Amino acid sequence: MTRIVVDAMGSDSFPTPDVQGAVMAAREYGVEIILVGDETKIKPALAALSAADLPIRIVHAPGMLSMEDKGEKLALKARHKDADNSMAVGIDLVKKGEADAFVTAGNTGAAMVTALFRLGRIRGVERPALAGPFPTGTGYCVVLDIGANPDCKPENLLQFGIMGSIYAEKVRGVSRPKVGLVSNGEEEGKGNELVKEATQLFRQSSLNYFGNVEGKEVLGGKVDVAVADGFVGNVMLKTSEAVAALLIAKIKESIKSGGPLAMLGGVLVKPALSKIKKLLDPSEEGAAPLLGVNGLVFIGHGRSDAIAIKNAVRVAKNASEARVLDAIKSAIEESLKKQPQP
Amino acid sequence: MTRIVVDAMGSDSFPTPDVQGAVMAAREYGVEIILVGDETKIKPALAALSAADLPIRIVHAPGMLSMEDKGEKLALKARHKDADNSMAVGIDLVKKGEADAFVTAGNTGAAMVTALFRLGRIRGVERPALAGPFPTGTGYCVVLDIGANPDCKPENLLQFGIMGSIYAEKVRGVSRPKVGLVSNGEEEGKGNELVKEATQLFRQSSLNYFGNVEGKEVLGGKVDVAVADGFVGNVMLKTSEAVAALLIAKIKESIKSGGPLAMLGGVLVKPALSKIKKLLDPSEEGAAPLLGVNGLVFIGHGRSDAIAIKNAVRVAKNASEARVLDAIKSAIEESLKKQPQP
Repeated sequence: MTRIVVDAMGSDSFPTPDVQGAVMAAREYGVEIILVGDETKIKPALAALSAADLPIRIVHAPGMLSMEDKGEKLALKARHKDADNSMAVGIDLVKKGEADAFVTAGNTGAAMVTALFRLGRIRGVERPALAGPFPTGTGYCVVLDIGANPDCKPENLLQFGIMGSIYAEKVRGVSRPKVGLVSNGEEEGKGNELVKEATQLFRQSSLNYFGNVEGKEVLGGKVDVAVADGFVGNVMLKTSEAVAALLIAKIKESIKSGGPLAMLGGVLVKPALSKIKKLLDPSEEGAAPLLGVNGLVFIGHGRSDAIAIKNAVRVAKNASEARVLDAIKSAIEESLKKQPQP
Repeated sequence: MTRIVVDAMGSDSFPTPDVQGAVMAAREYGVEIILVGDETKIKPALAALSAADLPIRIVHAPGMLSMEDKGEKLALKARHKDADNSMAVGIDLVKKGEADAFVTAGNTGAAMVTALFRLGRIRGVERPALAGPFPTGTGYCVVLDIGANPDCKPENLLQFGIMGSIYAEKVRGVSRPKVGLVSNGEEEGKGNELVKEATQLFRQSSLNYFGNVEGKEVLGGKVDVAVADGFVGNVMLKTSEAVAALLIAKIKESIKSGGPLAMLGGVLVKPALSKIKKLLDPSEEGAAPLLGVNGLVFIGHGRSDAIAIKNAVRVAKNASEARVLDAIKSAIEESLKKQPQP
């Protein structure tokens, strides 16, 4: 039975959504759940859910990371051998082989740093990357890096492409995933220095390289994986969220101010709009994997609800059962053999 | 009377929208129009519009730039003293002082290169930038650079901020425009190396510096100007367009497939949706100014219609009458005095 650690102290409204989502996942997906966090908080949340029949156990981790833990302070806490916060304790369970994956809706920076320090990187991976699923209307495009590395080298982008391709293949079930490089124009030759240099590496790689992509190729589902440095990927993510939010808000506002007929129309199209909202809802996909660290770590939105946590556990289970980590290890080794690093 | 040159060969469906928009502008805004391009094509288009009473004249420019003109080939054409394409001829009219601004819906790259070669840069400006208006729900945020410079130095970003601030103040009528730096997180300290270095320059400048911004601040109207390198700005623009297109398409699809009630609702909310579409429509703003070249140049979308061309002429007129060029010259000079370049 696949064993997933869920950070009970992760989401903005912890521990309720986190515990509830974990219980739902145990029930629906037949996974074993390990809840980490302050057991004085977890126990009552769990007791309310009549989950005694499910394979769920608690590992006590009384310490708390806060939004104030950043920079040096965070690094110290993330690295400390005896760290007792839920992220450190949960990730250690994965490291010791007592669990197969770690899921958190906590602070992204803290989760990345903790995972990096405690699990280390996969041999040959220079920079782990956070891989975000972008809705395409027909499915998802894996965009990476969406925020782990604001400054990258061309070799980093190639490794992001390799890891993203494995993830799309193993977890999303895409054969020979098409991999694009995010650029300021889809035409060949467009790009900043980084993208132009990376293009050479992608061409020589064994990836199914598609070429340059813009927003319309990513959101139009023309590629399965889109590679960018963590600055650009993050700007794409935040811009997408902001445009969608603005549009939905404006539609509601226009309908409300459009008089009684528009209001009636609004009532009638409500199910359609809900469908759209669901399409854009990050909770449908649950969480973004941090690819390249030596263990499976999934990081969700702070505002994750129980459904988002449940879905994150499902994705973590799929990744574990598809042996994504081993596949990434082999692919990176292969690529390094072919293309000796300078 | 302000004199605006309109490239009659610019838009994808030239010369009809270009000529029609120019005529509408002459009628509505009381500007003098100079149409440049192939007069055998312009004359019939103009004749169809009964515009004989308007101050419109044609300057013949028989040559054509095509999408194949790029790189070296484009540079040669853009630079050539006797170049007879509509962009070169039109921009020369501005250079010679025979017109106050140039408006084109032609190839962006060609327009930028032609303007740069023929007008040169404003003294002290290292890199001209294309400034795109992003809809915010309550107005517009000027984002620059949206594509002229894929690789930038911190000093370039500062100059973009200065030019964007002047533009927002003079053309959009914002006093003390708030200027943000696009980053991978709104928190202080977030950013790639470029943004972190630029932050120091912005802090020391006399700009009304807001701090880091993400998509939600730009589209939420929290700042009047958002500064990014041309790669990042372009990714923001293309991502915004793609998300809006996906969303509108999905809404239509959901309404269509939602049964008769949803269809009826769709009919009733149609005016509201049209309002949204208008909000996101680039033709409402017409065109993006290329700031930093020594003359007023506005570049519109290839798919501009007559309304977009008309609006572009209006914006060009406003910029000319507000003496944006002189204001940018003084502001750049001031900033160089304060902050001697290395």
